[in-house]
Amino acid sequence: MNPLVIISRKRDGLALTRDQIFDCITAYVAEEIPDYQMSALLMAIYLKGMNADETCYLTEAMLCSGDQLALTEGHGIVVDKHSTGGIGDKVSLLLAPLLACLGFRVPMLSGRSLGITGGTLDKLESVPGFRATLSPSEIDEITTATGCVICGASDAIAPADKLLYRLRDVTATVGSIPLITASILAKKLAENPAAIVFDIKCGHGALMKTPAMARELGRSLIDTSGLLGLSARALITDMSQPLGMMIGNTVEVREAWVAMEQGEPHDLIELTLALATQLLEMTGRQDLQPSLRKTLVSGEASRKFQEMIARQGGDLEQLPDPAWEYVESPQTGYVSDIDSEGIGRLLITMGGGRMRKEAEINHEAGIKLNYKIGDQVRKGQLLAGVTSPSDSSVLDCLASMITIEPESPELRPLIIDTMY
Amino acid sequence: MNPLVIISRKRDGLALTRDQIFDCITAYVAEEIPDYQMSALLMAIYLKGMNADETCYLTEAMLCSGDQLALTEGHGIVVDKHSTGGIGDKVSLLLAPLLACLGFRVPMLSGRSLGITGGTLDKLESVPGFRATLSPSEIDEITTATGCVICGASDAIAPADKLLYRLRDVTATVGSIPLITASILAKKLAENPAAIVFDIKCGHGALMKTPAMARELGRSLIDTSGLLGLSARALITDMSQPLGMMIGNTVEVREAWVAMEQGEPHDLIELTLALATQLLEMTGRQDLQPSLRKTLVSGEASRKFQEMIARQGGDLEQLPDPAWEYVESPQTGYVSDIDSEGIGRLLITMGGGRMRKEAEINHEAGIKLNYKIGDQVRKGQLLAGVTSPSDSSVLDCLASMITIEPESPELRPLIIDTMY
Repeated sequence: MNPLVIISRKRDGLALTRDQIFDCITAYVAEEIPDYQMSALLMAIYLKGMNADETCYLTEAMLCSGDQLALTEGHGIVVDKHSTGGIGDKVSLLLAPLLACLGFRVPMLSGRSLGITGGTLDKLESVPGFRATLSPSEIDEITTATGCVICGASDAIAPADKLLYRLRDVTATVGSIPLITASILAKKLAENPAAIVFDIKCGHGALMKTPAMARELGRSLIDTSGLLGLSARALITDMSQPLGMMIGNTVEVREAWVAMEQGEPHDLIELTLALATQLLEMTGRQDLQPSLRKTLVSGEASRKFQEMIARQGGDLEQLPDPAWEYVESPQTGYVSDIDSEGIGRLLITMGGGRMRKEAEINHEAGIKLNYKIGDQVRKGQLLAGVTSPSDSSVLDCLASMITIEPESPELRPLIIDTMY
Repeated sequence: MNPLVIISRKRDGLALTRDQIFDCITAYVAEEIPDYQMSALLMAIYLKGMNADETCYLTEAMLCSGDQLALTEGHGIVVDKHSTGGIGDKVSLLLAPLLACLGFRVPMLSGRSLGITGGTLDKLESVPGFRATLSPSEIDEITTATGCVICGASDAIAPADKLLYRLRDVTATVGSIPLITASILAKKLAENPAAIVFDIKCGHGALMKTPAMARELGRSLIDTSGLLGLSARALITDMSQPLGMMIGNTVEVREAWVAMEQGEPHDLIELTLALATQLLEMTGRQDLQPSLRKTLVSGEASRKFQEMIARQGGDLEQLPDPAWEYVESPQTGYVSDIDSEGIGRLLITMGGGRMRKEAEINHEAGIKLNYKIGDQVRKGQLLAGVTSPSDSSVLDCLASMITIEPESPELRPLIIDTMY
């Protein structure tokens, strides 16, 4: 295998063969291709794209670079969800236990926060004692007993993806549809699921800024999944404001837990149900549809959530309940815009997120919205809050991210599109 | 300076600023930007291009990464020629002494052979005692005394170019017009010439395969030179067959030497005169035009050539005169095609060229054409030869590269275009 031939082909817009892609990934993991050749190839892929077959081969090559989960048979249909990441997105914390309550098996391999995007593992590590790192046999045991687990992918899962992501991150080649597709799917395929639903966030708080970009990624994810024999659908969902009312780690776990008891906030519950509905349809279990909402909000999912956390060493009862400092609404009117990206950045400055992988996180740092887009607010009402201790500059900054106008704004739908 | 910002801009097809390009080159030479980031940037430049300003900044940044020749004033107008490289191209060996005879000063910094393209320094090193490596003060002294020198660029000249070329060579980013332009000009500008003429070879034996590609490079070289205050023109010249009759190192020096005594081969003489004419016009010395041919072929240039070589330690009288083995023409007809690229590759297999920079060269290995395209040849006449010792497979291979057809072919002009 001559890397120059492969780089030249892609540079010239030609498709790579299955052998070329496998050889290239295998050699890179074996350190037989240097970073400087791989980064030239990544830039060529970024600019020239990959067709459906190439994306499929790349996904397989990355999957085959590592181990796959070996789950004992006969304990439910394996399903999963993947979100491209947004502000306040704690859907996994509700969806995994909900699906487990319905008899599915959810070995959800999740990630950590980076940049403005939160990470499910960081959120769960707010719970005292929680272990995000599990061995393959622990994943098998816990999902056999409880139906769900949320943990990190071990280094043995798709090591090529870790190496490539590290290089993409420092060579401006992250935002490529085929590279994103292969990165997402290589890890998810290691779970060997029967069906998967993608939640593709769209808006200024998301990687995909426009519905067109989100649809392009959705198409690529669904088509590549299909070529690999995996049933897949995607929802394009609005990220022009945070999901739910809470943004942060501890506070999002608490919000998810409370939501499963009280049935709100509305957007969080509805998105969880919509994603679950797609999985029921894909697995031919529409018979479960009537009991979906009740299972989610009757306390059943909440108990499953608590059980899963307990099996991973955590005690949800010990979850801290931070105190809040609030900013008042400067005027009467309607909330017309919430700067999701700004809120994500503010959380990082509060220590609740990280710009570098190595950075420590202050789990308790959090932001709370009392109003969402379209809500009416009166001057002097408590508009939003941050966990204390804080200072006035943080509150001023938060206030500046919430736009209030005299007229009621046009509301955007939470679910922009469903893709098959 | 954040390399990611620069890579992203170019990736997105935006122009880089002068500061961004200078910062990037400076940091790369200082090893503050790793190869994997530079190779991503090079691929982005390859695929998205650079405008005239950017190419100009890149050239300047590469020039400024090293020293420039400091020549004592008052010893003639400094001029030079650059060829993009072809098979049998020994024009420099005639042009430098010709221009020196006319009172110009030619501090010609040249290169070595790589791949099928010959290198002027390798050719001259066929001459026993010849030194291709000269100090800046030696270059000044010899050009003051003799008017011309042909030597290698020291490591102090445009070190950024050496580093970038090495990386381009292993990342499939060599064939980019702005990168080629900056690489050529950064070294030539270090000579601080008043005028330069480019000989852009075009055909299957050249880097530029089509007249369109050659014109694009010519345009870029001339425009970038202009922005940098350097008067420049370009000839697009045919490389669908080798230049002259000899291909190799020793044999090309001998052919050049003999050409300056005998006034042939025709194509070599005419191309040398055409390039010299451009330099006369650019420097306002059209008054020298009438004496040009006579100076070249009367023995004057030949003596200057011998003098230059002597000042660089070489003794032209000691140049070996290899014996030849010939292949006969298998039929009667007209030579209709000569596979330049194949002949370049054959010379490499004979040891007369190199595929890797480190490889040693057998200077005496050579190929001789007895007929060029359009010449009539009879069956059994000696068609072409290789230096001995050789074997029949080499001769068979050579014969296969010369096509003979019953009809006289349409002749292509040697000079395809003149660009201003």
